[in-house]
Amino acid sequence: MDAVNATLGDAGVRESIAPSLPPQTDYDEFALIIDHLWLLIAAFLVFLMQAGFAMLETGTVRQKNAKNIMIKNVMDLVVGAFVWWGFGFPFAYGGGDYSGNAPNGFIGASGFFFIKGYDACSTDDNHPSACLYPISPSIDSFAGWLFQWAFAATATTIVSGAVAERCSFLGYVIYATFITGFIYPVVVHWIWSPYGWLTAFRDSPHGAWVAPGAVDFAGSSVVHMVGGCTALVAAAILGPRIGRFDADGNVKPMGPHNAAFVGLGTLILWFGWYGFNPGSTLALSGGFVLLAEKVAVGTTLAAAGGGLAAICCCFIKDKHLDLPPLCNGILAGLVAVCSGVAVSEPWACFVIGIIGGFFEFGFAIAVQKMKIDDPLDAAAVHMGGGMIGMICGGLFGTRINTDAAYSTEQPCGAFMPGCGGKQLGVNVLTMIMVAIWSMGMGSIVFGSMRLAGILRISPEEEHAGLDASHHGGSAYDDGKTDPATEFEK
Amino acid sequence: MDAVNATLGDAGVRESIAPSLPPQTDYDEFALIIDHLWLLIAAFLVFLMQAGFAMLETGTVRQKNAKNIMIKNVMDLVVGAFVWWGFGFPFAYGGGDYSGNAPNGFIGASGFFFIKGYDACSTDDNHPSACLYPISPSIDSFAGWLFQWAFAATATTIVSGAVAERCSFLGYVIYATFITGFIYPVVVHWIWSPYGWLTAFRDSPHGAWVAPGAVDFAGSSVVHMVGGCTALVAAAILGPRIGRFDADGNVKPMGPHNAAFVGLGTLILWFGWYGFNPGSTLALSGGFVLLAEKVAVGTTLAAAGGGLAAICCCFIKDKHLDLPPLCNGILAGLVAVCSGVAVSEPWACFVIGIIGGFFEFGFAIAVQKMKIDDPLDAAAVHMGGGMIGMICGGLFGTRINTDAAYSTEQPCGAFMPGCGGKQLGVNVLTMIMVAIWSMGMGSIVFGSMRLAGILRISPEEEHAGLDASHHGGSAYDDGKTDPATEFEK
Amino acid sequence: MDAVNATLGDAGVRESIAPSLPPQTDYDEFALIIDHLWLLIAAFLVFLMQAGFAMLETGTVRQKNAKNIMIKNVMDLVVGAFVWWGFGFPFAYGGGDYSGNAPNGFIGASGFFFIKGYDACSTDDNHPSACLYPISPSIDSFAGWLFQWAFAATATTIVSGAVAERCSFLGYVIYATFITGFIYPVVVHWIWSPYGWLTAFRDSPHGAWVAPGAVDFAGSSVVHMVGGCTALVAAAILGPRIGRFDADGNVKPMGPHNAAFVGLGTLILWFGWYGFNPGSTLALSGGFVLLAEKVAVGTTLAAAGGGLAAICCCFIKDKHLDLPPLCNGILAGLVAVCSGVAVSEPWACFVIGIIGGFFEFGFAIAVQKMKIDDPLDAAAVHMGGGMIGMICGGLFGTRINTDAAYSTEQPCGAFMPGCGGKQLGVNVLTMIMVAIWSMGMGSIVFGSMRLAGILRISPEEEHAGLDASHHGGSAYDDGKTDPATEFEK
Repeated sequence: MDAVNATLGDAGVRESIAPSLPPQTDYDEFALIIDHLWLLIAAFLVFLMQAGFAMLETGTVRQKNAKNIMIKNVMDLVVGAFVWWGFGFPFAYGGGDYSGNAPNGFIGASGFFFIKGYDACSTDDNHPSACLYPISPSIDSFAGWLFQWAFAATATTIVSGAVAERCSFLGYVIYATFITGFIYPVVVHWIWSPYGWLTAFRDSPHGAWVAPGAVDFAGSSVVHMVGGCTALVAAAILGPRIGRFDADGNVKPMGPHNAAFVGLGTLILWFGWYGFNPGSTLALSGGFVLLAEKVAVGTTLAAAGGGLAAICCCFIKDKHLDLPPLCNGILAGLVAVCSGVAVSEPWACFVIGIIGGFFEFGFAIAVQKMKIDDPLDAAAVHMGGGMIGMICGGLFGTRINTDAAYSTEQPCGAFMPGCGGKQLGVNVLTMIMVAIWSMGMGSIVFGSMRLAGILRISPEEEHAGLDASHHGGSAYDDGKTDPATEFEK
Repeated sequence: MDAVNATLGDAGVRESIAPSLPPQTDYDEFALIIDHLWLLIAAFLVFLMQAGFAMLETGTVRQKNAKNIMIKNVMDLVVGAFVWWGFGFPFAYGGGDYSGNAPNGFIGASGFFFIKGYDACSTDDNHPSACLYPISPSIDSFAGWLFQWAFAATATTIVSGAVAERCSFLGYVIYATFITGFIYPVVVHWIWSPYGWLTAFRDSPHGAWVAPGAVDFAGSSVVHMVGGCTALVAAAILGPRIGRFDADGNVKPMGPHNAAFVGLGTLILWFGWYGFNPGSTLALSGGFVLLAEKVAVGTTLAAAGGGLAAICCCFIKDKHLDLPPLCNGILAGLVAVCSGVAVSEPWACFVIGIIGGFFEFGFAIAVQKMKIDDPLDAAAVHMGGGMIGMICGGLFGTRINTDAAYSTEQPCGAFMPGCGGKQLGVNVLTMIMVAIWSMGMGSIVFGSMRLAGILRISPEEEHAGLDASHHGGSAYDDGKTDPATEFEK
Repeated sequence: MDAVNATLGDAGVRESIAPSLPPQTDYDEFALIIDHLWLLIAAFLVFLMQAGFAMLETGTVRQKNAKNIMIKNVMDLVVGAFVWWGFGFPFAYGGGDYSGNAPNGFIGASGFFFIKGYDACSTDDNHPSACLYPISPSIDSFAGWLFQWAFAATATTIVSGAVAERCSFLGYVIYATFITGFIYPVVVHWIWSPYGWLTAFRDSPHGAWVAPGAVDFAGSSVVHMVGGCTALVAAAILGPRIGRFDADGNVKPMGPHNAAFVGLGTLILWFGWYGFNPGSTLALSGGFVLLAEKVAVGTTLAAAGGGLAAICCCFIKDKHLDLPPLCNGILAGLVAVCSGVAVSEPWACFVIGIIGGFFEFGFAIAVQKMKIDDPLDAAAVHMGGGMIGMICGGLFGTRINTDAAYSTEQPCGAFMPGCGGKQLGVNVLTMIMVAIWSMGMGSIVFGSMRLAGILRISPEEEHAGLDASHHGGSAYDDGKTDPATEFEK
């Protein structure tokens, strides 16, 4: 609590943990603090997105499975934290300069169950260079770990919507572990680590085999396509909910059971996105605060564009305005803008959102036509929106914005004068590779579980609902059977 | 994601976007970053107030209209972002130094669909001065735009409560567009822009026709009276919900249908108010952090005062304690303190909250007596609370607090020794002008729609509820008609 | 709103309020701003925990008492702000250097209804030294007051869960006043004020009678044991809900009535805990940002550990996975880690969380066996988790982490090489003293109210439910009795 009082007047932590540090200027000190604070705030906001997903998914499923989906969403964080600590983070960012292994472009390989902190100044020979004071908001810092964990939990949670109302709990635990611990981290390593083969942040002599590297600022592919692609194959392998398609293959409506939860969840997600996108600057110093706020504005306009596009589609198709399409359009706009938000002008973010909203609406219909039952339209929002994002990330980048967000060597967008199509090519390649990886790994994980017969609950349990069959009863109790009253009799 | 890594070691954005910048001191750089960060955080918190309004309004209406009100609250942000980008912000803050137009005291007139960013350093002759590095948390910055947008959405959302359960969707879209794009921005220009005729921040030779200008720190009049006054005329013109008043003119209770949502919404709104009021310092540097935290404390005590006053009134009137009056009292206290929170001592904020709570309670009863049906008591909370706020903003300001928040030229409050009644006079004038403008414009917009016959849904639709008649079915589904079960048969 | 514009170009608040200030370096200025900002952000997050408690408690009780518990949770903030302003803060931190009284180790005694602000630079002889510019994030600052208030509200809210569904409103108001205004502040003074007899932050010649003082970084004992211990005696004195135990003394299930609220509340609480624990550094400057982010990571792993432990216990005991045990396990992990999170490594925080989760699960069963009816298991989570926290706070502290968080004089943990058992001894003593104080005071307050016959509602009212009997009707209205429809007839 009053830790500060104990050290007022001296330099506090820094003195005590890193006596050997080189002297710093006030600005260095300030930059460290403000950048780490920014990472912390962003991590907290992204964490809250889990509450948004929880309410959105709980509201969208049928009442008899409400408690089950809530348990899974809460477990995503609990299981995710353990797995990310043990394997996810090491696979994503391991292989850095404090590791004995030679870094490679495919996967990290060090730091299992290890979080670099200021204890690293000990004479632990395995992490000599870790003794460097993290003057930059290093991904290896505590704040960086937390921010990355919140992102990993997002990728995993996306899938829980697609397999809702019929996936076994064992199946859920297994896939959650694989996605958080392997499928997602590998893509992070490819695109965001300094050693990945698709990274835009290469660290010579190691680093990208593909130059100039992909523009995926906040994860249209890394987070959303990984979650959305896995969700699609998961829903396909798991099969539709009983009664979702009638004998003629027509879709029959199922849920949502609580529209208020759907709206609340969407607004909380939008709120959390202000940590997800602007926070991806990872810093505020060196002028990055201006980039962060431009990203916040672009995020806002993309959400608006996506919502407007989807609500129009809904009205044209159904002759009425409904909430779920509006919410999914907003989310698709937010997903689509993740990739290019830092390099695009606000007007372009609005356009990207509109395209994302339209594409998501059509994607959801296409998935249904394929007789795939995705209760939350997770694939449409996150895979569809993510694909649009990767393409637009190669189309709308302006020179000045790209210089500000990346470097003068990063190409700008194909639609912008004098930029050429190079970035578009790299982004499309990245989109394809991420889709192949995620759908391939998803097929293996979910296919194996299906063959093992542990993936899906029984028809009887499905009819009864997971809450009654697996979680001790309904999520709701209207008090009709009050023990107190019974007690009277 | 790792944008920062790409530029570590150089000055990042600033170098690349504004090579011609004059050298700055560390403190200048720090002030820019911390002030913009503060604006961003505040904007995020004010944004979340939309989730608070959504839950409060959804919980308060009848179940059959729950989805409708949620859709409208979500649409407020979607429509609002587009309109604010296109017209709202330009009308509010256009006419500044980067505009060709001569500024005037009534309305801004430049920057339509334009958000000034660091691209403005291009040789765009239309915005030469925009090339200046925004060393102050300029309203023209991205963060300033976002913060202002969140405020605009608040003003618009207030009205949705007053017209709940009977307003057509077309009518909603039209009024939301007018309020966000014209009615609200004009008042912002009057009172908060450097050119407004009532502004306390005049920019000679332009600027306030009225000196010394109004004290409305966070918008008791600008945001809440605009929303509340428009809400009152809207409810009056729209007419009461069927069955709200019986043959003898007695009020019949309607809703709330979910008290948990009402409580949650109120707590989220209170949380968001910590961005709304403290964030209105717009800066932390130059000692403003002390003002921001004083404002946070005053906001807290005002909420407490308002809640205590209203719950006492409720108990005296109804002989029991109910949640909606408690929540509305808290909100009225928060609304009332917006104007004077920066210039008043904490004890005064508590007193302002108490007065606001009492007045709101009586105002709500008066509105009912006038046979006006305001489902959320939006007028009582926001117009009533806002009026008390403007008056108290001219009563409780102390010299030292006024110096700190405004300037030594701004008068202090009539109740304080040696201050005189000048500020009270200006604030009362402002209160009257804002009420006339908002109610006048509201009458034109809603009156025209009523005459055009597009404002209200049909009695049949109202009986069925908007969810069933316009939005594809109820907001809730208890699963009694599960397609899966039907499928079995 | 535009306060900043009024003073751009001058030093703003500081100039106008403290002309006599000594010149400061940029770093001093920066440290003041960033540290106060951190306190504000943390205070806002801890405030939001009230929304988390409100949803958790509302969801857990039976439907017929949902509105009552929501009203109480909202009132906790309203009543709490008034009482904390008047008595709580003065008892906790009064007796500082601006007070005429000689400080003592048991309770503070100055500053009633006074919040030290920059007005204190007036020539008010009662607070001469207050004129010092608060260069450190002083507990006496506005931000410090707000942060402390949010903590106090937490301690009080914990009890509302234990007495849910049967406590009278008068009884609630009385105990809320006593806890916020006396029981809790006294413990704060003991352990967190510079004068307390158990403080680790002694201020010679005053200060701790016990050296080296307790390690309770974020309040395992100060906040959670005070709330949990009081909750236990309150539940015991109040007696079980009618029908909770059958003739044979077997527990009969009651609630939760809404699992979605339970999950949402838990996630909001987890989110708020990122203000509760990391914010307890009170500062970011001087390297404390690194401590804050380490604390955030430890908090995350403790929540995960607690959730995993409890869900395993639940499966073993009930053969199914249920939401409330999972949520309570997470909360117990968060409670348990509060004490030692700053001095422990991340892996130790995970272990502390696991121990907390297991202990909480067993504690809840033990409480039931004692025929004590604690609807929210508040005692198990907060008293049980808090006890584990105080013990572990004396076991897992490493030398380097303790140096960073406290000082080189503070002993490290008994399990760590070369640390010895001194800290464990002090923490166990503290745990015992806090338990005795809280349970003793709780017995007096609740015992007196029971003797006075004002503590519990009548059996008839309890059967009807508090909402129907005390708050004007049910929290929910499914619209079956729509006045509009009645009106038709």
